[in-house]
Amino acid sequence: MLIQIKNSCTEEELETITGLAKESGFKTSLVKTHNARYIICSGKAEFDLRHFGSLPGVKDVHMVEEDCKLVSRLWKVNETEIDLGDGVAISRKDLSIVMGPCSIESEEQVIKISDFLAENGIKIMRGGIFKPRSSPYSFRGMGIEGLKFFSRHCRARGIKIVSEVMQVSQIDAMYDLVDIFQVGTRNAQNFNLLDALGRTDKPVLLKRGMSSTIQELLASAEYIFSNGNERIILCERGIRTFEKAYRNTLDLNAIPLLKEKSHLPVFSDPSHGVGIRQYVESMALASVMAGADGVMIEIGEIPERAASDGQQTLSLTEAKQAIMKLRKTYSLKKDFLFLEQ
Amino acid sequence: MLIQIKNSCTEEELETITGLAKESGFKTSLVKTHNARYIICSGKAEFDLRHFGSLPGVKDVHMVEEDCKLVSRLWKVNETEIDLGDGVAISRKDLSIVMGPCSIESEEQVIKISDFLAENGIKIMRGGIFKPRSSPYSFRGMGIEGLKFFSRHCRARGIKIVSEVMQVSQIDAMYDLVDIFQVGTRNAQNFNLLDALGRTDKPVLLKRGMSSTIQELLASAEYIFSNGNERIILCERGIRTFEKAYRNTLDLNAIPLLKEKSHLPVFSDPSHGVGIRQYVESMALASVMAGADGVMIEIGEIPERAASDGQQTLSLTEAKQAIMKLRKTYSLKKDFLFLEQ
Amino acid sequence: MLIQIKNSCTEEELETITGLAKESGFKTSLVKTHNARYIICSGKAEFDLRHFGSLPGVKDVHMVEEDCKLVSRLWKVNETEIDLGDGVAISRKDLSIVMGPCSIESEEQVIKISDFLAENGIKIMRGGIFKPRSSPYSFRGMGIEGLKFFSRHCRARGIKIVSEVMQVSQIDAMYDLVDIFQVGTRNAQNFNLLDALGRTDKPVLLKRGMSSTIQELLASAEYIFSNGNERIILCERGIRTFEKAYRNTLDLNAIPLLKEKSHLPVFSDPSHGVGIRQYVESMALASVMAGADGVMIEIGEIPERAASDGQQTLSLTEAKQAIMKLRKTYSLKKDFLFLEQ
Amino acid sequence: MLIQIKNSCTEEELETITGLAKESGFKTSLVKTHNARYIICSGKAEFDLRHFGSLPGVKDVHMVEEDCKLVSRLWKVNETEIDLGDGVAISRKDLSIVMGPCSIESEEQVIKISDFLAENGIKIMRGGIFKPRSSPYSFRGMGIEGLKFFSRHCRARGIKIVSEVMQVSQIDAMYDLVDIFQVGTRNAQNFNLLDALGRTDKPVLLKRGMSSTIQELLASAEYIFSNGNERIILCERGIRTFEKAYRNTLDLNAIPLLKEKSHLPVFSDPSHGVGIRQYVESMALASVMAGADGVMIEIGEIPERAASDGQQTLSLTEAKQAIMKLRKTYSLKKDFLFLEQ
Repeated sequence: MLIQIKNSCTEEELETITGLAKESGFKTSLVKTHNARYIICSGKAEFDLRHFGSLPGVKDVHMVEEDCKLVSRLWKVNETEIDLGDGVAISRKDLSIVMGPCSIESEEQVIKISDFLAENGIKIMRGGIFKPRSSPYSFRGMGIEGLKFFSRHCRARGIKIVSEVMQVSQIDAMYDLVDIFQVGTRNAQNFNLLDALGRTDKPVLLKRGMSSTIQELLASAEYIFSNGNERIILCERGIRTFEKAYRNTLDLNAIPLLKEKSHLPVFSDPSHGVGIRQYVESMALASVMAGADGVMIEIGEIPERAASDGQQTLSLTEAKQAIMKLRKTYSLKKDFLFLEQ
Repeated sequence: MLIQIKNSCTEEELETITGLAKESGFKTSLVKTHNARYIICSGKAEFDLRHFGSLPGVKDVHMVEEDCKLVSRLWKVNETEIDLGDGVAISRKDLSIVMGPCSIESEEQVIKISDFLAENGIKIMRGGIFKPRSSPYSFRGMGIEGLKFFSRHCRARGIKIVSEVMQVSQIDAMYDLVDIFQVGTRNAQNFNLLDALGRTDKPVLLKRGMSSTIQELLASAEYIFSNGNERIILCERGIRTFEKAYRNTLDLNAIPLLKEKSHLPVFSDPSHGVGIRQYVESMALASVMAGADGVMIEIGEIPERAASDGQQTLSLTEAKQAIMKLRKTYSLKKDFLFLEQ
Repeated sequence: MLIQIKNSCTEEELETITGLAKESGFKTSLVKTHNARYIICSGKAEFDLRHFGSLPGVKDVHMVEEDCKLVSRLWKVNETEIDLGDGVAISRKDLSIVMGPCSIESEEQVIKISDFLAENGIKIMRGGIFKPRSSPYSFRGMGIEGLKFFSRHCRARGIKIVSEVMQVSQIDAMYDLVDIFQVGTRNAQNFNLLDALGRTDKPVLLKRGMSSTIQELLASAEYIFSNGNERIILCERGIRTFEKAYRNTLDLNAIPLLKEKSHLPVFSDPSHGVGIRQYVESMALASVMAGADGVMIEIGEIPERAASDGQQTLSLTEAKQAIMKLRKTYSLKKDFLFLEQ
Repeated sequence: MLIQIKNSCTEEELETITGLAKESGFKTSLVKTHNARYIICSGKAEFDLRHFGSLPGVKDVHMVEEDCKLVSRLWKVNETEIDLGDGVAISRKDLSIVMGPCSIESEEQVIKISDFLAENGIKIMRGGIFKPRSSPYSFRGMGIEGLKFFSRHCRARGIKIVSEVMQVSQIDAMYDLVDIFQVGTRNAQNFNLLDALGRTDKPVLLKRGMSSTIQELLASAEYIFSNGNERIILCERGIRTFEKAYRNTLDLNAIPLLKEKSHLPVFSDPSHGVGIRQYVESMALASVMAGADGVMIEIGEIPERAASDGQQTLSLTEAKQAIMKLRKTYSLKKDFLFLEQ
């Protein structure tokens, strides 16, 4: 059971509601986010839904028997919109296209790419400054110094920034410089990191673990939400299968399923998903037709010279083509969605 | 190396070519299909490509170092078109939509669905008469009797038939009644069946094994082609992964990769792929954007009552919607393909 | 429900039993094997077990709600023993060690290896004469001619033969020359082949499909049994996973699970399982400790020159060492099993 | 290339060696552990091995072309032994048996189990105080308070402790209370945590990620080693595959492979690996025969009442049986290892 609490609800009323839930046999957790309060009632209990609904201070009560309650569509039919400020928002009104290099490598690179994005109306730029690398001897990113000029140039152009955070101690240093924290696939079940991001008020783009089930992805999102942060984006980025002809197996089945189970926006990352440059555009278009609210694509001026992941990076010319096609495809998909209403 | 032989090539010329290839160190296989002859030269050898090219009887010579030579794009840039007669063809000119029930269950069912297809301009109907079932005690299909009325009603409406063949001994009995033989996922590496289908002149729709790599799928197609049958359709139908939220994991990454590696047409089967009714349409549309030449979709009058696979079957109303959207999506994808030329 | 029928049961009594089962709401299948008759009752029904137990002609009645009834331990607690004649049997009394080359290549090879086996007390030899190969251009085995001398030399030395059958039409030609038919991993769900092998009276060694679940492996065995052949050996041979450091992932978890679920003997094939020569012995010993009733190991005089799978083949010196260690390990495991009784 | 540095090597000599390596075209990293110094030379370069070997300050030089250099057997043939003090060591001389509950739940539980271990000669106890749980609403462990009495009772009985650390900030608080830090499967690629553990001098038991390749597991160990901590134990604990009949698929193939590739000790965790109580013992014995240096097994007084993972927990009676069998099996395996020398 999930109980939505009125803004006007007093502490005494809250105690009455919680007490009653416990009496009924539930384990309760109070969740406070930046816009609302919820009481999460776990476990099995006998109770009368209407009884709770009529208590003072209660806004609404929902049966959500699944483990992942706050991120579920069962209590919130409308899709979550995430306002990034300055007129940039993640919502069903428009496809969110996120582009940028795998790693931030130099100020020149940031200028070049942010110029390209601004010219093409792309409002969110990606770029890693802390890079998780399999080998300890590989390039591990420019760190906060890189983020400073990355942020400065993007802000000058009205572009929002998403960048990966790898540990709790990086959150504070990054906070003022990014607009969306990204949680990478290797940290998808780093619960301490999820807890800490739940206590911030910045949006979080949560990538699916490379062997996470849909259920585990939603549970990771529930960690963030239950700590107080409602602004979460789910991102499919390829799973690990027996097939080695591509880097990962981008699992587009996840997209319509996540859209049905959860009210959170769902992105797709075809660059890491398929991991081969000439297939990235097709998989991005397919993601949109599968129902994605956004796509993340790695681009670079000279992909062959990227410090990491050059083999999956689109050139600026390819990116321009992809943007045009993505917009046309999304426009058609939106027509289809209207038909269904 | 793959040597294309001229139609006018004499037996003596053929012997000279083969002899020279063997002298150069190759193992050779002569392949005769209904339209052409090829000499497949396997193994590593030192030779002069121009020397072979200039021999009498040789049409063209290609370096194809991969194991799968005949199905490769390296020697045949143009996509294979498959003419089914009566104006029905599988080609890049139009999206091939294949619809029908999982199993043929009754004459009434066939009439109902073939009428629906005829009204909606769908030219190919699917329907199983031999059903591979995990349990020996399940319904295993109506057999040839079912195929007879299935075929009669389809022919009366100008509709072509695709149906699964499970063993060599069924080929003859089915031959006059089907237009395309389907090889199911469990027989994707049943090499004797592939050999035998290679000796017929009917098109073969070859489903990817549920744990077949792309390379193995192409090798299975090479079995059919090297036995003499050039008319092969590759079909992605979902692979087996750790994720159990869907029946299989439809692997759309396979589509752009297969289109690049092979000249054969590529279909997608979202019904088995994702296996859940409400996601089938999205995955079908995504397949088209990924580059599929055709989609196979299970439909039925009352999906809930189907003898098999009802949970993944679209109703006729849903099918009608899906057809409209598929055509619009394909039209957009075709525009994109034109841009690339 | 599974009903064991007395040998003395008359046709009339059988009809009464079947009639009553149908009346109760079951779908029934009569299974006749070489030693017994069974009525398999599928579906859900309300009935009184004692009522059936007291009918004339009924030997015993068991609740077996799973799909795989005949192969289940739920009605047959004792392990199935398979007598191959001449004092060779597959049973818990002794570890079955099966050795031999991947492919039969020459008479000299057969003589050499069968001599080695005879000297070392190994009673079953493996060797392929029909080889499933990914590429149509690879060596596909010596066929029946090879089987003839293979069989002759083994019989002269009191050694039994197991060899793979790939299609129904090969069964008759192989019947007199082999002692155990092997079904390969690619045919683990070739239901027509399973049906046909169920109609013979030769033991069948059924390999797990490379992506078959335990449930599917048991269902494939049920196909054979329900057609009349009780003499089935289940064989774990490695599954397909994301890990590519070995050829397949030998799944030893399957062994204690299969031993619990089914009364059939369970073998392990570490040669294909791990697929790397220096790890085969360790995985064979581990298989025994996991509870395997037998192990299949590829051996050859000069592994480096084998026509197929040389990289996973033990030399005769290595094989001799492995035999000694396997016997000591099995002896210890048998001590442990006695402790449990 | 990996250069071992003499203890007597001066700073100037070190600079000369590093300078020369850079001149030859290498990227160099200096690694200082508690016993030794190494220069890791990455990348491809032309050089004369003997030249480096003859430099003052150089102990030895090895060609190690793989990414994982420090953990490789290529420069260190002898197996790493880990001395835990008080006569407890992880080495080939004896099988390391680690037992204990999934979660520390109460002081009574710790007393009961540590008494049992002391009576049975088991020297290392496991027990979680920080629990990674899929759902944010599940029991997440007793924390440092639990660790305090856990540690006190174990020390009183001469038993060493292994417990999972989930984030960098927990290291200091746990440092004095544990003997081995465990890195869980979800943190196997939490590189910041690995870096931090590499800067401590406590042994680290590193579990394989549930979808980590062998190569990735070794790379994670390389992170720890290259930060200065040589005392690492690798632990196979089950991978994620399509098979859902067990909790995970314990991958015993990993054991002989890891033993060959690396000089680090290798453990197996059959409790999480197969995850079903009645198969744990068989899989533990199989692990030993596969070559494991240690096994970790979950035990509890009343498994059915455990706060987590009760379904895979052995009772004390079962544990006693397993200990006896493990010792006998290891004794036989050790005899086999002697034969090979």
